[in-house]
Order: sequence, then C-alpha cells, then structure tokens
Amino acid sequence: MIADLKVADVPHISTEICRIATQAGADYVIVQGFLGEDVIESCSRAADIFVVCDMSHPGALDFITPNIEKIAEKAKKYASGIVGPATRPESIKTLKRITGELPLISPGVKAQGAEVGDAIRAGADFEIVGRAIYMSRDPADEAERIYKKLKEIGDI
Amino acid sequence: MIADLKVADVPHISTEICRIATQAGADYVIVQGFLGEDVIESCSRAADIFVVCDMSHPGALDFITPNIEKIAEKAKKYASGIVGPATRPESIKTLKRITGELPLISPGVKAQGAEVGDAIRAGADFEIVGRAIYMSRDPADEAERIYKKLKEIGDI
Repeated sequence: MIADLKVADVPHISTEICRIATQAGADYVIVQGFLGEDVIESCSRAADIFVVCDMSHPGALDFITPNIEKIAEKAKKYASGIVGPATRPESIKTLKRITGELPLISPGVKAQGAEVGDAIRAGADFEIVGRAIYMSRDPADEAERIYKKLKEIGDI
Repeated sequence: MIADLKVADVPHISTEICRIATQAGADYVIVQGFLGEDVIESCSRAADIFVVCDMSHPGALDFITPNIEKIAEKAKKYASGIVGPATRPESIKTLKRITGELPLISPGVKAQGAEVGDAIRAGADFEIVGRAIYMSRDPADEAERIYKKLKEIGDI
C-alpha cells in the first residue's frame, strides 16, 4: 500500500509523518521532492518513499515543472520510486532518463486530461486511475476496460 | 485555530482537505504556495488560508527560497496570511515588502536555530514556538520567558 500523503513539511515533522504511516501499515509513503534534499533524505530513513518530481495540474508549471531535473537528481539518491504526471509525457521522459530503473507511477489519467496509455508510452511503469473508475457508473467495468487498454500497449 | 496541514496536492484534493479542515473547526488552513496558483486559488474558495512562501529548514534553499517573490505575488491575491521562516530574516523582509498588510506568521524559532525576536524584528507579525516550549522541562515557565522577550521587542 502506498500512502499518498504528499508529505511537505520540515524534516522532523515529515519524518514523523512517514514513521507513523509506516507503523500504520503503509509499504511506501509519497513525499514532495520540492521540499529539498534534507526532507527527502530524512523521510527515507523513516519509510520507503516515492518522491513527487512533477505534478499533473496546470499550476505545477509555476514552480515545480521548471525544477524537475534537479528534484529527480535528489530523489534518485533516496527513493524507492518516483511520481510523475500522465498529463506531461515530456516530464515522464525526462524523469526516466534521470532516474533509470526506479519505478515511476503516474497520476492524472482521464479526469485530469491524459488518455489511458499516455504515461506508459512515455516510459511510466504504472498509471494511477482514480476518479475515472470510482466516479463511473460501473467502476468494475471501467477498470476492466482500462486494464485491457493498458495490456494492449504492454503487448506492443 | 490554524490547521498546519501544509496542503500540497492537486487542486481537487487540496480543496477537499481545506473543506474538511474548515468543517472540523479550523479557522485557517496552511497551504504550500509552491504548488502553484491554481491550488492556492481553489483552496481559498474552500477555506481561509495561510500560504507557505518560504520555509525554515536548510533544504528549502534547494527549490523554495529561490522562488519566494513569485510565490508571494500569487499568495497575496488569495491568502488571509502568509508563512515565512524565522531562520531567514531576509526572506521575511522580502515577503513583507510584497505582501504588505497580510499577517506573517513565522516558525523555526529556537529548535530550528532562530532566536526569539529575530522574525518579529524582520517584520513578522507572530512567531510560532513549538518544541522550545513543549519539550522544555517547564513549558509554562518557558512560554512566559519567551512572551516577555517578545513583549520587550514590541515595546522598543
């Protein structure tokens, strides 16, 4: 289980959040890379972490997207995986170039504008689909349809 | 009551966090400004917000501190107040220059290295003291001592 807390506080608080989430059963905790290297490093001592290197919303362009290369350089030293936006395939390519084998999970599919498969084609390892499934009239059917689409891409 | 959640997610999630915190009794919710203008704007429709424009830990220098002027420009359009670090008086001066009358609250006192009064002298409206009080052997006495120091500065 990945606890998507987008942890974004000073080191001693962020670390405590990671510790509590791990104790509560989280396998991984998501931490905001924008906080800087000391936060990433200290969180990685309290939990296995995924680090957000770029985000899917338009406002990410203000401060986050211009820094993704530097954030990824720091993240790859400590993270078990990284988070990059399905809405920005170019970001995913950049992140994969820097972080190599680290798993990249990608939110922003459908409800935020990306098509199923966009992130995987750009190099993401997993796509995260939330509202498109849980707000659909038939979530099981929608999940099945998305799964099949991704499987087709995987078979190419 | 200010809910110091350092909200740092995409707009629809951040807004929901702000809404829930407000419903639970928070007068204000603290939101991370580096998320960008759409997050700040949408949170401000769900809650009265304080926006973090700079932070007190060393890692803030990696990505946040270089952007404080632009973060503050966005924050002042929507925020009821802003958050700036007692450990960086220069940041507080910059933030006050940009955000003017907006209340500035300042963490990072004592445990993180700033002296009591540093932030107020730089222009902050309030200093936030956590560990120096709650981890002291006599919290009431320590709080009293800090209060007196700040009152002296206020009287200058």
